[in-house]
Amino acid sequence: MRDGKVKIAVVAPASRLEPETAERVQEIARTAYPGVKLVFHPQCFLASGHFAGDDETRMNAFVEVANDEAFSAVWFARGGYGSGRIAEGVLERLHAAARRKLYLGYSDGAFLLAGLYRHGYHAAHGPIPHDVRRVGGEDAVKRALSFLADRDAAALEPTIDGKHPTAAFNMTILSHLIGTRLMPDLSNHVLMLEEVSEHLYAIDRSLVHIVSDETLRRAAGVRLGRCSDIPSNDPEFGQTPEQIMQHWCTVAGIPYLGRGDIGHDAENKIVPFGFLKDMPG
Amino acid sequence: MRDGKVKIAVVAPASRLEPETAERVQEIARTAYPGVKLVFHPQCFLASGHFAGDDETRMNAFVEVANDEAFSAVWFARGGYGSGRIAEGVLERLHAAARRKLYLGYSDGAFLLAGLYRHGYHAAHGPIPHDVRRVGGEDAVKRALSFLADRDAAALEPTIDGKHPTAAFNMTILSHLIGTRLMPDLSNHVLMLEEVSEHLYAIDRSLVHIVSDETLRRAAGVRLGRCSDIPSNDPEFGQTPEQIMQHWCTVAGIPYLGRGDIGHDAENKIVPFGFLKDMPG
Repeated sequence: MRDGKVKIAVVAPASRLEPETAERVQEIARTAYPGVKLVFHPQCFLASGHFAGDDETRMNAFVEVANDEAFSAVWFARGGYGSGRIAEGVLERLHAAARRKLYLGYSDGAFLLAGLYRHGYHAAHGPIPHDVRRVGGEDAVKRALSFLADRDAAALEPTIDGKHPTAAFNMTILSHLIGTRLMPDLSNHVLMLEEVSEHLYAIDRSLVHIVSDETLRRAAGVRLGRCSDIPSNDPEFGQTPEQIMQHWCTVAGIPYLGRGDIGHDAENKIVPFGFLKDMPG
Repeated sequence: MRDGKVKIAVVAPASRLEPETAERVQEIARTAYPGVKLVFHPQCFLASGHFAGDDETRMNAFVEVANDEAFSAVWFARGGYGSGRIAEGVLERLHAAARRKLYLGYSDGAFLLAGLYRHGYHAAHGPIPHDVRRVGGEDAVKRALSFLADRDAAALEPTIDGKHPTAAFNMTILSHLIGTRLMPDLSNHVLMLEEVSEHLYAIDRSLVHIVSDETLRRAAGVRLGRCSDIPSNDPEFGQTPEQIMQHWCTVAGIPYLGRGDIGHDAENKIVPFGFLKDMPG
């Protein structure tokens, strides 16, 4: 590291970050993690319709920092929507330096995390800069920084025991990955799934799709993260998210392992794609 | 046909039908199509949480009428959600009589229509009894009946010219079919896609998934049906549904053929899965 610090790049492969949000996260990093240098790529603040710049601009920024030896991690500024539009293009342009760093994000960012993991890069599910806006969001950001800087095991989802590789996804995103060239082989993994702002019938529909996938049927087991902000179902769906999950795990012959400590909230924990011991740094 | 009439069975593989809705449709059939005998299976009116009866009950009703030689068609009472939960189970239990009839539905019903078509049964996208509740819905029901009873070509989507096989889907449903054992080979087909009540970013996300599928990339072309009741996007998405569709067709090398006359509305036209000339009756 050129200045003795752990340098972490922040880019926005999907939706745009507000500059004030970046400043709040910088302040936390300066105060709590003085050994970390956070570099927000200016692309984070661009706007092109729904996105933080058009596809080419977002792709260029991601490839630039991923291929830069100076950065030990690439942290996704925010989810929202858009990383699936650039994931294949990004993967075609990564060099060797991109293999020696960690990629951290979640939600929509899992389009990229999945593709990166499939191709042998180091990816993890966990809090992102935009989470600072949540109630308690400062803790989420500190948790992410403690993992990015020190691989602090306290930041990990607490059921992770190193016996199986792990992966974590938003259910809707995983459903949209099925059959694509971004989908990793998750057989033998403990798979953690969370959801936000989807009706119970849509959660059910995503899970039907997910458990239909042959490699997902070979998962070591599934844990259910939090399903938050569920709109009311008309009529009453008649099952809780956990009952829905247990039903489809039984149908598919996948062990249901209980709850996982992930979700679209400030409590969201780190879940490595694969094994923690294989992570660089 | 035992009483000289065209007998059509109505079952509800997904959401429940109100008895009054069935009565309105019966009245239209009696008046406008006296040669048709519509038989609403009592299962249509059952309720089990979100569904018109539990999975086993809906499956049994579907299989019963599909395997009944007396019926020339099975008409799906309603979409909503639930046919994907029973489609594989239904397909395992169909007999030869099930091959000599037509299956008509759309929206969520396409989980079944897709699986039926994949396995060589005769399926078509088109209006359903529940559509009678729409403004102008009586016309939608008459259009479906004219096709069910007489294969009236006036009911067909008007661009269908018999040169290519066709298929029609709600985008969200097609996205959820990708990678499953229900997904038919749609290469060389003209594929028509419509959507309802989804954000523009979700339409974009479904289309990214759809055009990633190898057999869909070999479609003869794509037509865009209506995208209705789109919630407002924050921020402005910056593209119309047609611009989104054209973009992804270009990326995937699929010819974009213009608009198609389908959607979640009373104007929704009939689109055979495959060729009209191959339909029974």
